[in-house]
Amino acid sequence: MSAMIAGIIGATGYAGAELVRLLSGHPKIENLVLSSVSFEGEKIEDIYPNFLERVSGRLLKAEDVIASSDVVFAGLPHAVGEPFASSCMERKIHFIDLSADFRFGGNEEVYSAWYGKNYQFPKLHEKSIYGLPELNRKLIKEEAAKGPVIIGNPGCYPTGPSLGVMPALMNGYICAGAPVIIDSASGTSGGGREPSRSFHYCECADSTAPYKIASHRHSPEIENNFAAISKAANVPAPKVIFTPHLVPMNRGILSTIYIPLSEKFCAAPSKTMMPMSDDNISKTEDIRKFYADFYKDEPFVRVMPSGVTPATNRVRGSNYCDISVQIDINGSTLIVVTAIDNMIKGAAGQAIQNMNILFGFDEKDGLEAIPMLF
Amino acid sequence: MSAMIAGIIGATGYAGAELVRLLSGHPKIENLVLSSVSFEGEKIEDIYPNFLERVSGRLLKAEDVIASSDVVFAGLPHAVGEPFASSCMERKIHFIDLSADFRFGGNEEVYSAWYGKNYQFPKLHEKSIYGLPELNRKLIKEEAAKGPVIIGNPGCYPTGPSLGVMPALMNGYICAGAPVIIDSASGTSGGGREPSRSFHYCECADSTAPYKIASHRHSPEIENNFAAISKAANVPAPKVIFTPHLVPMNRGILSTIYIPLSEKFCAAPSKTMMPMSDDNISKTEDIRKFYADFYKDEPFVRVMPSGVTPATNRVRGSNYCDISVQIDINGSTLIVVTAIDNMIKGAAGQAIQNMNILFGFDEKDGLEAIPMLF
Amino acid sequence: MSAMIAGIIGATGYAGAELVRLLSGHPKIENLVLSSVSFEGEKIEDIYPNFLERVSGRLLKAEDVIASSDVVFAGLPHAVGEPFASSCMERKIHFIDLSADFRFGGNEEVYSAWYGKNYQFPKLHEKSIYGLPELNRKLIKEEAAKGPVIIGNPGCYPTGPSLGVMPALMNGYICAGAPVIIDSASGTSGGGREPSRSFHYCECADSTAPYKIASHRHSPEIENNFAAISKAANVPAPKVIFTPHLVPMNRGILSTIYIPLSEKFCAAPSKTMMPMSDDNISKTEDIRKFYADFYKDEPFVRVMPSGVTPATNRVRGSNYCDISVQIDINGSTLIVVTAIDNMIKGAAGQAIQNMNILFGFDEKDGLEAIPMLF
Amino acid sequence: MSAMIAGIIGATGYAGAELVRLLSGHPKIENLVLSSVSFEGEKIEDIYPNFLERVSGRLLKAEDVIASSDVVFAGLPHAVGEPFASSCMERKIHFIDLSADFRFGGNEEVYSAWYGKNYQFPKLHEKSIYGLPELNRKLIKEEAAKGPVIIGNPGCYPTGPSLGVMPALMNGYICAGAPVIIDSASGTSGGGREPSRSFHYCECADSTAPYKIASHRHSPEIENNFAAISKAANVPAPKVIFTPHLVPMNRGILSTIYIPLSEKFCAAPSKTMMPMSDDNISKTEDIRKFYADFYKDEPFVRVMPSGVTPATNRVRGSNYCDISVQIDINGSTLIVVTAIDNMIKGAAGQAIQNMNILFGFDEKDGLEAIPMLF
Repeated sequence: MSAMIAGIIGATGYAGAELVRLLSGHPKIENLVLSSVSFEGEKIEDIYPNFLERVSGRLLKAEDVIASSDVVFAGLPHAVGEPFASSCMERKIHFIDLSADFRFGGNEEVYSAWYGKNYQFPKLHEKSIYGLPELNRKLIKEEAAKGPVIIGNPGCYPTGPSLGVMPALMNGYICAGAPVIIDSASGTSGGGREPSRSFHYCECADSTAPYKIASHRHSPEIENNFAAISKAANVPAPKVIFTPHLVPMNRGILSTIYIPLSEKFCAAPSKTMMPMSDDNISKTEDIRKFYADFYKDEPFVRVMPSGVTPATNRVRGSNYCDISVQIDINGSTLIVVTAIDNMIKGAAGQAIQNMNILFGFDEKDGLEAIPMLF
Repeated sequence: MSAMIAGIIGATGYAGAELVRLLSGHPKIENLVLSSVSFEGEKIEDIYPNFLERVSGRLLKAEDVIASSDVVFAGLPHAVGEPFASSCMERKIHFIDLSADFRFGGNEEVYSAWYGKNYQFPKLHEKSIYGLPELNRKLIKEEAAKGPVIIGNPGCYPTGPSLGVMPALMNGYICAGAPVIIDSASGTSGGGREPSRSFHYCECADSTAPYKIASHRHSPEIENNFAAISKAANVPAPKVIFTPHLVPMNRGILSTIYIPLSEKFCAAPSKTMMPMSDDNISKTEDIRKFYADFYKDEPFVRVMPSGVTPATNRVRGSNYCDISVQIDINGSTLIVVTAIDNMIKGAAGQAIQNMNILFGFDEKDGLEAIPMLF
Repeated sequence: MSAMIAGIIGATGYAGAELVRLLSGHPKIENLVLSSVSFEGEKIEDIYPNFLERVSGRLLKAEDVIASSDVVFAGLPHAVGEPFASSCMERKIHFIDLSADFRFGGNEEVYSAWYGKNYQFPKLHEKSIYGLPELNRKLIKEEAAKGPVIIGNPGCYPTGPSLGVMPALMNGYICAGAPVIIDSASGTSGGGREPSRSFHYCECADSTAPYKIASHRHSPEIENNFAAISKAANVPAPKVIFTPHLVPMNRGILSTIYIPLSEKFCAAPSKTMMPMSDDNISKTEDIRKFYADFYKDEPFVRVMPSGVTPATNRVRGSNYCDISVQIDINGSTLIVVTAIDNMIKGAAGQAIQNMNILFGFDEKDGLEAIPMLF
Repeated sequence: MSAMIAGIIGATGYAGAELVRLLSGHPKIENLVLSSVSFEGEKIEDIYPNFLERVSGRLLKAEDVIASSDVVFAGLPHAVGEPFASSCMERKIHFIDLSADFRFGGNEEVYSAWYGKNYQFPKLHEKSIYGLPELNRKLIKEEAAKGPVIIGNPGCYPTGPSLGVMPALMNGYICAGAPVIIDSASGTSGGGREPSRSFHYCECADSTAPYKIASHRHSPEIENNFAAISKAANVPAPKVIFTPHLVPMNRGILSTIYIPLSEKFCAAPSKTMMPMSDDNISKTEDIRKFYADFYKDEPFVRVMPSGVTPATNRVRGSNYCDISVQIDINGSTLIVVTAIDNMIKGAAGQAIQNMNILFGFDEKDGLEAIPMLF
């Protein structure tokens, strides 16, 4: 298949519109067909005038999108997309879902506890794959070879921490039994396009605040990812403590992750109230090199050089996840920092990366943008 | 003493200018005398045109400020203010220092390891007091009754976490041996008025980034505070892991603090990947009530009602430190969040609070501003 | 009357909440009573947690507010406040309205053309006064001496340009027949507290855009003000061209005003494509001095020193209107720039200034805040 | 010539780095060679870590860049680039200069009056071309056919107003003798990468301010452009009044342009203080259609549909100039609004557009990015 038609259901939300923008530049996509419940019958470029003269398309019904597409992306709210997934399976085309509906596989109990809905089509979930390519690339390829696949594209928050913790879990760095603490800061686009007080300019500009402490829906997804990685590595899965914050920026998620090191990887602690030990510097560099090696073939993970820490403006507009590591001065905690563009690696970009894998395209197709510092 | 003259050395930095703004409205301050090395001879209102028609004053030499003041504040860089402190002691007037020079008392080893300078006047440090009123109010009063006092005003980052952790330490909540993790986000005014790449608009707007991971100078200050509180509470002092971040806002520091709970305060953990237990809600409320009671007489600490979390825009322009508590779903970690205005409770406001205590004024004098949401 | 009760109808909108914040610090106001349709029965500090421990009050019905107040402010949408104004007149208490309802006096035709409603109580409008103190102070005082007064508090945009153009009109600077062009940039708080797409963080952050070109409701108000000033000065009233813009900031309105100079005030034009003439510098300074003298007794108008231009962060949090003047290099256009805090001089602060005049208080009471640069 | 090497002198400034980013994705550029005086010998990806794993290059001397390039861009401060232009002419390669040095052609008097320097190589200026493709495309092509060309790439501010006024001048819309007023708002990247107080985050965030009123160096450039267009149209050149403002955003320039209409294009004015006339709506649409037709073949100018106004976030990251037109309610003033991304159409993108014209490439090569709303 050389050129094909991609369908986007829910094309007028922020994730949907980002899919439109990125897929418009994808070398293998010839055309887009779009749907929107809120704006059915209108044109996408009237909803998003930034698209004028570049993207033009009448917003259809979801059914019509499915009927004329070679692959379907869904940028819908949670708990409404299963029927579309089902239609795609019947039509034998891949369905890449950006909602949470297909992120928990057969674990309906967890999904329904956090999202307040039961599965409508339980069988679909058995064949769905969690679309974190760095974890499940092989599985995605294998299943795509057999037939149409449902991808549960990862949540924006879980992506960075999953990539940031994976090498540590794989190499046994993490002290069994101790929780991994994830402190994340997100730009406001994570809240979507629907106006609300929390994202009203005056309420969130020039301010920082946590929200949903100990109760954010991405907690179980992160824990699930850690469990999957741990299973692969044959190590015990760590508990997760996750606190999201809203910061006044458009895009980006920065996660600072506190990993309790297993004893053999600890560095000499600094003397009480004193600066970092030389042993720390050396052990930190060992871990950094391991991380760099671990990800050396991943097209979208960049392990920072020594002395460089991630910043969300260094990944803006790109599909990169940047990662740094540093042992704390107490010697027994590894501080991993990850940065992604939440709209790209945290949503639309990762979905396209999954499409590229499903179809055997170059994984970087359509995702070649170099980060814009500002 | 009913009305008096306050001197500000280093009046043109951000902390100095905030002292000018706040002291101009202080009911017990009749007049201000100001100095600046960079702008000596100029007028403060030419450097800060927002002061036009409200504050007028030629910028003098520091010596002239000291000679004509009843109390002296110093908003200087680190390691230059000791001679001025010495002069104030000779003149028998209180010296309130906003730099780090007098935050470490007799512990010169720690100071010099982190700030790269030895004490010039070691004797002065023996009588200096760390100016966190909620911790040292009684001591400040007692020493002020005896003679002139040097106050080492707390750093911007240590203030919130010290207040956020104090009740937990005092009541034995903290699991001995485990580190307390502090993840903080600061507005850019914390970096001062001197232009640099890090605070150049395009480099920091619309972005979040950590900095000085495992190597920020406020780490030992926080650890020192925890040790002082622990000593008073007769409990072991916890280690500190501290990561500062820069977020695109003018003012404010939000700190999210992860405290390992000692066993008897833990809540039932949630089942794997499941939401919060009822026991958690109930135990969280117990801790919240303890915090509220602990701080009920403090004029500038507000423990949030149940369900409300701090945000930096809820303390903007005020001397408040807002605090919330929440046990994590794992049941064994207490997540405390604190918010301050870094320029006020984190710098100039706290310095004025210290002055009010030194002179026996109403502690709220000059600090009555209600927070501006925006 | 030494201490009194102020009522605020519509206390939970941004203008209402700013009245709450400012009146809480007013030396002559003992107590506040508040109403809200949207949040009736709730507490103001639950809607605005920044008020915790500082302002406490159950939100009542508007009628109950009127019944227990000595003066009433209304922060309501347009076209709903007339019945409350009527009640206040019956109770013989002043009514200060922040909506547009009482800004057009007897000119119902203009009001209804722009606001889509007719007057409900036409008689009330005959006695209402447009509350721009610098224009109508004397009238406000005179009418207050006779009985209860209705103040139509000026719109946020008209305030700066009216003050910026007044001296030029009064002194005959303006070339008859030519339009005055006003190009204004407003922070987002001008749009109020109700969430909408235009003020959704991602839609307006990091962007600038004009809106309602040639159709903003403040156009006729500005034109009306210019006409009133012109009448007082016995000069022809200029036409107005007004373009508002939304810029990514919380507070502030900056207006750049292009005034065609009458011939005798023109400066020598610069040679084609060349810099400013010396004559320009000298004539600009003459005009600047006239402005400074014109406003020398006004407590809240600051004419900038030579070489200083207004910026919204130089008036933030204050009731000031800052003004600068500069003749363009073409010699025949005066460029006046004004800056206000739209929430204060553009809304709540000016309303309090009007109250102070009505009651014979010091005009600066409750409005003494020094501008915060950030 | 199918693939070639582009040299960038001054690659570490913001315009230089934007050239690096955009040229890295240009289909006809095989390789980049870069120079920097400040960072000679370092790697570009160490100065801009957003380039990690995407752009790699040691920063050379300017001479070495020229020696190995097929085309040279210069992102230098004013008045230092002439020797490099001279070298390029000797080497027979095109030189595209982003400074002001080659924007005034033979008019050294104007250049030296505003930039404080005389020409070093006067002969070079005789053959330089002002690189506004919509005005000079034909000339650029003709000269490129003859030999190496020096392009003076337009300033960021002049680009939008020149495109916004061109159709009006060409079609005789503008009333002879009256000045055109241009009120512009720029993001902070226009100030470059060098830290200074004006662009220090706390000094410019959450604020709007004018600067260099009646004295900005882009005034004569705009006037020169209007003169060139007028000459082509055989109409009198209008005078220019230009006021730049700094607004708190990273990228973008929005210009609101007030054009006095010649009588036959005026609409019926609205009645005093009344809304827009129907005649206005109809005449505005006539002008809009003329503009749309005028620019119908331009790849990077978008005339907005009726009812849509430009916003800087609708061109972010793209080479577009968006334009809207609206007759004011007074009927005799045309309000044209233009928006560009100052780093792209206002600098690096336009430079690449010029390169594409010089070499006969598709004018859109390397400039295909769809605007990112945020």
